[in-house]
Amino acid sequence: SGVVHVKNPHLEAMDEDILYHLDLGTKTHNLPEMFGDIKFVCVGGSPNRMRAFAQFLRQELGLAGDGEELADICAGTDRYAMYRAGPVLSVSHGMGIPSISIMLHELIKLLHHAKCRDVTIIRIGTSGGLGVETGSVVITDTALDSSFKPRFEQVVLGEVVVRSTELDKDLAEELLACSKEIPDFPTLIGHTMCTYDFYEGQGRLDGALCSFSSEKKLEYLRRAYEAGVRNIEMESTAFAALCGLCGLRGES
Amino acid sequence: SGVVHVKNPHLEAMDEDILYHLDLGTKTHNLPEMFGDIKFVCVGGSPNRMRAFAQFLRQELGLAGDGEELADICAGTDRYAMYRAGPVLSVSHGMGIPSISIMLHELIKLLHHAKCRDVTIIRIGTSGGLGVETGSVVITDTALDSSFKPRFEQVVLGEVVVRSTELDKDLAEELLACSKEIPDFPTLIGHTMCTYDFYEGQGRLDGALCSFSSEKKLEYLRRAYEAGVRNIEMESTAFAALCGLCGLRGES
Repeated sequence: SGVVHVKNPHLEAMDEDILYHLDLGTKTHNLPEMFGDIKFVCVGGSPNRMRAFAQFLRQELGLAGDGEELADICAGTDRYAMYRAGPVLSVSHGMGIPSISIMLHELIKLLHHAKCRDVTIIRIGTSGGLGVETGSVVITDTALDSSFKPRFEQVVLGEVVVRSTELDKDLAEELLACSKEIPDFPTLIGHTMCTYDFYEGQGRLDGALCSFSSEKKLEYLRRAYEAGVRNIEMESTAFAALCGLCGLRGES
Repeated sequence: SGVVHVKNPHLEAMDEDILYHLDLGTKTHNLPEMFGDIKFVCVGGSPNRMRAFAQFLRQELGLAGDGEELADICAGTDRYAMYRAGPVLSVSHGMGIPSISIMLHELIKLLHHAKCRDVTIIRIGTSGGLGVETGSVVITDTALDSSFKPRFEQVVLGEVVVRSTELDKDLAEELLACSKEIPDFPTLIGHTMCTYDFYEGQGRLDGALCSFSSEKKLEYLRRAYEAGVRNIEMESTAFAALCGLCGLRGES
């Protein structure tokens, strides 16, 4: 029916829901009025970049102003930043799975409280390409963990729960079709590998610690490529798992 | 000998080291001149809080100005913020292990390039207390993972490497001794549990997803308490492991 699910029986019994890291709440803000018409959410790591993206969208959508006065909806906190451009929210999530997870839990509750319907969410962050031309856009069909498996291992009360990381295939095809209209950069659909670490986890040779050779690094990246990985980043498995469970149409 | 180690044989062969997420580098900045006299680094999640902490320190240390003009040394990036108060750096790290790991890799390289000696690093972030009075300060002796084990599992090229999460016991005792002079809040030494997730990982009942009962949550937290856990946060195991390996005297 297009609504955003929360899968938490405790929430209904709560008198008030404070979205602490967004500095929003059900008693302090009229969430349906503020957000009820939202249809798209774009998320990325850097707050400045998500602000610039919202400004760009406002221009594209022909919305008033040059965007300079764009207000951060989460101005009361420095954890995340959130901007609006018509029916689109542009939200930062910081770096890594724990950081995006906190934001997504609170964003999903926000969309639920606001009674939003048919929401599409797209992560538009940076990533390292693998065997693709520099500057390519990789549209993720499935997010893989660092063992090249399509799963997200969520620890719940100390126990590992395995979740699916498939993303919306139709949405991926739609985005690919859109890219055909923009000849500026190559675009492809592929798997995205998500790691918990930027240096040792992604085979970088320039961290404070590095215990492997350049050959071992290349062998690992070659195996990743053979498993269908076309880019590497640090949030996609958690993004795919959470959006999938909560009925958001998601792409990365 | 008190120097900050990097354990990476590749670094010496590099012509230039760009500390990308700090917007600093060995060719663009004179790191020994900028940072050679640093003796303490304090880190915490929020950029605004680390700025306020640096301002507080400047007042405590009798340094000139009211601190209002305090410059963000990493102003060229919005990933992290870094402020200076005499021999102390105050640096933000965002939320979660992946985010603090990126910062620590680059900070450790910074201290190494700057030829700093005898550096003490202290994480002063917020945390959830467990069976302790509200407002207590918990000084960590050992960081535990969500299975209450004193270890950090680092994935290196897809393989799990287990690292120790012991912190400096003498430093913990020194900090506890300091706390005796400040009667305002209770202070104790205990274990700190570090999770990858704020909602389901820490037994919260108010996330977008929650599959457990209040009783199961309490049982998990009771087991944590029995294992010696006195507070819960999201960075300490990675912090302890990285600082320990690189010769930084660390506390959390």
